Amino acid sequence: MQAFTHLDSKGQAFMVDVSQKAVSTRQATATALLQTTSQVIQLIEQQLVIKGDVLATARLAGIMAAKQTSQLIPLCHPLPLSQVQVHFQLDQNKGQIRIQCCCKVTANTGVEMEAMTGVCVAALTLYDMVKAVDPALQISDVQLLEKQGGKSGLWLAPHLQKETADA
Amino acid sequence: MQAFTHLDSKGQAFMVDVSQKAVSTRQATATALLQTTSQVIQLIEQQLVIKGDVLATARLAGIMAAKQTSQLIPLCHPLPLSQVQVHFQLDQNKGQIRIQCCCKVTANTGVEMEAMTGVCVAALTLYDMVKAVDPALQISDVQLLEKQGGKSGLWLAPHLQKETADA
Amino acid sequence: MQAFTHLDSKGQAFMVDVSQKAVSTRQATATALLQTTSQVIQLIEQQLVIKGDVLATARLAGIMAAKQTSQLIPLCHPLPLSQVQVHFQLDQNKGQIRIQCCCKVTANTGVEMEAMTGVCVAALTLYDMVKAVDPALQISDVQLLEKQGGKSGLWLAPHLQKETADA
Amino acid sequence: MQAFTHLDSKGQAFMVDVSQKAVSTRQATATALLQTTSQVIQLIEQQLVIKGDVLATARLAGIMAAKQTSQLIPLCHPLPLSQVQVHFQLDQNKGQIRIQCCCKVTANTGVEMEAMTGVCVAALTLYDMVKAVDPALQISDVQLLEKQGGKSGLWLAPHLQKETADA
Amino acid sequence: MQAFTHLDSKGQAFMVDVSQKAVSTRQATATALLQTTSQVIQLIEQQLVIKGDVLATARLAGIMAAKQTSQLIPLCHPLPLSQVQVHFQLDQNKGQIRIQCCCKVTANTGVEMEAMTGVCVAALTLYDMVKAVDPALQISDVQLLEKQGGKSGLWLAPHLQKETADA
Amino acid sequence: MQAFTHLDSKGQAFMVDVSQKAVSTRQATATALLQTTSQVIQLIEQQLVIKGDVLATARLAGIMAAKQTSQLIPLCHPLPLSQVQVHFQLDQNKGQIRIQCCCKVTANTGVEMEAMTGVCVAALTLYDMVKAVDPALQISDVQLLEKQGGKSGLWLAPHLQKETADA
Repeated sequence: MQAFTHLDSKGQAFMVDVSQKAVSTRQATATALLQTTSQVIQLIEQQLVIKGDVLATARLAGIMAAKQTSQLIPLCHPLPLSQVQVHFQLDQNKGQIRIQCCCKVTANTGVEMEAMTGVCVAALTLYDMVKAVDPALQISDVQLLEKQGGKSGLWLAPHLQKETADA
Repeated sequence: MQAFTHLDSKGQAFMVDVSQKAVSTRQATATALLQTTSQVIQLIEQQLVIKGDVLATARLAGIMAAKQTSQLIPLCHPLPLSQVQVHFQLDQNKGQIRIQCCCKVTANTGVEMEAMTGVCVAALTLYDMVKAVDPALQISDVQLLEKQGGKSGLWLAPHLQKETADA
Repeated sequence: MQAFTHLDSKGQAFMVDVSQKAVSTRQATATALLQTTSQVIQLIEQQLVIKGDVLATARLAGIMAAKQTSQLIPLCHPLPLSQVQVHFQLDQNKGQIRIQCCCKVTANTGVEMEAMTGVCVAALTLYDMVKAVDPALQISDVQLLEKQGGKSGLWLAPHLQKETADA
Repeated sequence: MQAFTHLDSKGQAFMVDVSQKAVSTRQATATALLQTTSQVIQLIEQQLVIKGDVLATARLAGIMAAKQTSQLIPLCHPLPLSQVQVHFQLDQNKGQIRIQCCCKVTANTGVEMEAMTGVCVAALTLYDMVKAVDPALQISDVQLLEKQGGKSGLWLAPHLQKETADA
Repeated sequence: MQAFTHLDSKGQAFMVDVSQKAVSTRQATATALLQTTSQVIQLIEQQLVIKGDVLATARLAGIMAAKQTSQLIPLCHPLPLSQVQVHFQLDQNKGQIRIQCCCKVTANTGVEMEAMTGVCVAALTLYDMVKAVDPALQISDVQLLEKQGGKSGLWLAPHLQKETADA
Repeated sequence: MQAFTHLDSKGQAFMVDVSQKAVSTRQATATALLQTTSQVIQLIEQQLVIKGDVLATARLAGIMAAKQTSQLIPLCHPLPLSQVQVHFQLDQNKGQIRIQCCCKVTANTGVEMEAMTGVCVAALTLYDMVKAVDPALQISDVQLLEKQGGKSGLWLAPHLQKETADA
């Protein structure tokens, strides 16, 4: 099994040298699941009816956080993101919100961390607005869904690979 | 059911007025679970033997992110944090890392978001270091464990309330 | 006429000592005017009908910028803002948007700069979204409307003083 | 009339994809007008005689803010600015300062927002230093003067187009 | 000899709890020495004659960096600085610039790191402007000169204690 | 002797235009010396035995600061760093720590300031952790060791040039 790429032979952290990697268009999508109650989802949907800012606030927080990834994650490279999108899908029955963040860049390293950071901060922002109503809200299932570009090409999360294989 | 505290009657987001709330010492602890493989946990433990920086890197990222919470979460108040701690517990059998972040402040609003942000960014930093080995890593079970101080006093996560009731 | 408070006798900039000023609750409101076209205002209002994010985006940008004021304005003191609000008023006939930002703090110095920064960044964010449609948009009439608290007490902008005197 | 480029068909904000736009050298110049009193301009000019930091402070604040544009304006792309300049022109008779900010980049999107942000923060910094003397100071006439580069080529503000046409 | 205050018994870094420390007015002054050539000092002095921005730029960079200390130094507490000053003393014969930064706060922990950070970033900014002329410039003698306030009261750097004792 | 590159003919600071400079891979290494006592070095080495975070904390602070250079140093260009490394060498006899920071980029301007900033903030972070034990600690000998790439090619610090010439 391969060793950690961010540690040298003495175990010391460093920002890896990506200057020899090829510049290409790279993309990554991450997801997260917010588990709250049906009532909270109902409240959010009522807000949407009166054009309330709940989802807009979380969406912008996610987009802005994706742009700050290299300042939050110590060993991440600063990247000139060319696109960031954050989407939400509400399920009132299950009391859930599914969040998705997709990032794109033309650079010599990938944008997985940007997508993961965007999805986490969007989830945290929802929690901030919902916590007075449901302090027990949980964020789970934060994971990378897929990434494209670079030497390794397309990568799909295990449960998506199965779906693809089954299809 | 009460409405969202961060939205006015027209559904517009704003930073709520906390100037009339009492200043007291407040504390909050949040947690997250990293689901990876036994091999990854073994790799991290081998790094610790040679004093590798894996956990130290994630710990510092979590501490520094907690201090930046009001710049990441749009409607959070800037707070003069008086303490931040991040801890990890490794379970090689289950391939898991349990993360915990505890924040403290003397102010007129609580530090739940700081603890939640700290735990998320520590988890994201671990993902950044582990993703070359296990890109399918999942972050789950991000939630508040407890908070103290302020008008509402002690709050415990539902599963901890049960434990307390059972004891 | 009094000299500049932010320059010493040699004309050198410094962050003035506010440690001897009394802590009190202070508040400030600033305004700005966006001059665009009737068509743009119509477009924004159409977006609002479909719950579009135009005003929500500008509102959040203004709130977040108010919190970053001391990092943007070199000689400003860092302040633990207790409230920030940003409001918009659209006038389709005149093709105008009136922006207002109100900030509050309990501290030993005022929040005029936070309100002024909030209103400017909200205006810049609107410009960013509108510029593809109306690159000639102008921001004008950026000024303080009123401030309260501290030794100097209530201050009103000249045109509001007149109104008050007339009433 | 074209729709907003920063909103999708549902009106949701996103950072637009610029990865397919051509990389070219782009430039933008913005302006702002500070309306204060003759006495304030006289005070600033006296400071300049003793080498006071008034204009230097505002100039640096503008330059540094231009570099932070993508962190202030939610849907702006991070850009590796290759040049930023801020200039002032004082008119004692009118009690005015005309500010100009010019930015340059080699990238796949323009620098209008950087020039607009630079000019606004320079103006806010002047206001911060002048407000103890003239709290009624107004910032007006914030607009783009010209931009070059990219697919759309040269763009001039309407009043400059007329001048060009008249010449 | 006492152990490190920022490490727990397992050697893990954390932000120490200052919530029980008394709030008092605290002050710290740090210094640094820039060793360059007589010609560079002469160039700077010529710039000052034409009101050039060399020292103003370094002064503002130092002041702004002092305000960002808690975001640069991982285990530092965020502090509401009430004053920051940066001064320079040029010695053309020795080709030296002596920098001094003084910070003040009313809080439950001291401002040594803010003064040290301010002096370092002012020195780095001078280096940035001078490096095309003298890339071999050295920064040395970065140290705390004195601090006041808090439980430990007045502290003087060793060489100042001697001077005081000798007097 | 050449004039300052960051000042125009009126002595006004600006961010110089690098858009015409060639893009190449550039590298720079800076150093700093921490002078403390043998006991402190012994304490740090004891911490390392129990895997304490002292050096890891300073290393990460240096790496993260290098990425923030253009926000700290007013006239620095934002650069997409491709590598950052920070190393320490302890000398218990002399009570010294030698710090080294190496940065790399593929861009049209060099990374000297990033290496210098990284080494300074790593030193400041060590001071923060050591100051309770040795408040008189000094940082000295902060200088550029070498830089490569760009039009000027390889540059070595004067004392290294001699060594090379002697060899």
